[in-house]
Amino acid sequence: MPFKLVMEQISKRKNSRVILALDLQPDNPETLLKKAQKILGAVHMHICAVKFNRHLILPLGLYNDVQRLVDQAKKYDLPLIMDCKINDIGNTNRTIAEHYFKAGFDAVTANPLVGWQDGLQPVFEVAEKMQHGVILLVYMSHRGAWEGYGQKVFNENTGEIIPQHRIFAEKALEWKADGVVVGSTYPSKIQEVQLTLKNEVPIYSPGIGTQGGIIEAALKNGAKYLIVGRTITLSQDPSKTAEGIKLAAQTCLS
Amino acid sequence: MPFKLVMEQISKRKNSRVILALDLQPDNPETLLKKAQKILGAVHMHICAVKFNRHLILPLGLYNDVQRLVDQAKKYDLPLIMDCKINDIGNTNRTIAEHYFKAGFDAVTANPLVGWQDGLQPVFEVAEKMQHGVILLVYMSHRGAWEGYGQKVFNENTGEIIPQHRIFAEKALEWKADGVVVGSTYPSKIQEVQLTLKNEVPIYSPGIGTQGGIIEAALKNGAKYLIVGRTITLSQDPSKTAEGIKLAAQTCLS
Repeated sequence: MPFKLVMEQISKRKNSRVILALDLQPDNPETLLKKAQKILGAVHMHICAVKFNRHLILPLGLYNDVQRLVDQAKKYDLPLIMDCKINDIGNTNRTIAEHYFKAGFDAVTANPLVGWQDGLQPVFEVAEKMQHGVILLVYMSHRGAWEGYGQKVFNENTGEIIPQHRIFAEKALEWKADGVVVGSTYPSKIQEVQLTLKNEVPIYSPGIGTQGGIIEAALKNGAKYLIVGRTITLSQDPSKTAEGIKLAAQTCLS
Repeated sequence: MPFKLVMEQISKRKNSRVILALDLQPDNPETLLKKAQKILGAVHMHICAVKFNRHLILPLGLYNDVQRLVDQAKKYDLPLIMDCKINDIGNTNRTIAEHYFKAGFDAVTANPLVGWQDGLQPVFEVAEKMQHGVILLVYMSHRGAWEGYGQKVFNENTGEIIPQHRIFAEKALEWKADGVVVGSTYPSKIQEVQLTLKNEVPIYSPGIGTQGGIIEAALKNGAKYLIVGRTITLSQDPSKTAEGIKLAAQTCLS
């Protein structure tokens, strides 16, 4: 089943739009593993997917202890997203995607700045072959995002001046991406991107809580999934926090 | 010593501008490690640095077998560049950079699209603190590079229309990067970027050989270092090939 549908079904079944970002602050590998296992165990019933990043991959090793977390997530039937933000040449991109898919991840994130030919084409090909997903960065959640994602691009053929994020959103449609990332810290950008995507491609929105994003603003402007990291992982009671976000999202949309 | 100077000194001492990209094609981890050790052992006298990428990090593990290669490179006094193309939010970027530096790498590559605030600022800060280097992508070597790196950007303040790669090159100057990457497959872009950088920031040029880049064109247009992967790693005689490229570069510049 295409990743887009996998996400839709599990999100409906669990009545949750919350994706846990297991981006734990640096610590020794054993502590990191234990913390990750504990948080995953505590919140799995409240989330619809889990997202990994280099916080865990680099210290734990993709084919070493990360596998224990992958197995745990699979036990809970949670889709796994690797937020590797692929942005290399095609040969390398293919190798990266193949590794993450082989290691049990269901989707990868990638940066559309790379372009298609010898860039992200091999990633989409591998993903299609393995029935996995590709999620494109369209407008990131951090304060400096305006510099690149917010710049205006001049189209030499039409003479138009177009925001970078619209160009990236159009690539997501053209390349048939399974999702795009737009920071919840920029609700107006979510709205603009949603106008381009027209529900064809779901919006994944990070930055809720710690980075300043607001649940309601993200969802009402068109985000489909909320990616939440530190607000849950640094919480005194991760399960309660995750449940709270899940319920708040339900309320917003009811 | 700043990474820029480290590179300059070793390049002079060894009379080589060749950086080996140990980007080996996928294989089982033991074979990969053995191949990498063998190639590094065979070519170390002809190169001035070695560059790693996810081809080795993901299957071998940063703190596992990659450490054996790091030790081997250090034995030969070779600076180590991690081509991780950092492009995440600041908190994640810092974590990535810290891991690679802690694991023995002397420099990381990063994508300036991310911007400064909460983007690459933490990477430059960590690098400065640990006396390590940051190399920025300015124009990549693959065929689709024109899509992003070649796009024209409209400056709302001045009304100017500026190529993306010039904006990235200007950021390299402003942020005091230790180097920039411009593909040898686009010698005219090397020349344009060199006009902006005026020898303040050295140009690292990948894509020689397998991807179609020509040694002479890259160097004559302003590249300082040649990053060579498959042309050496897939050669029947990696040592001879690396020596050949080293000598060809010397001839070009004599």
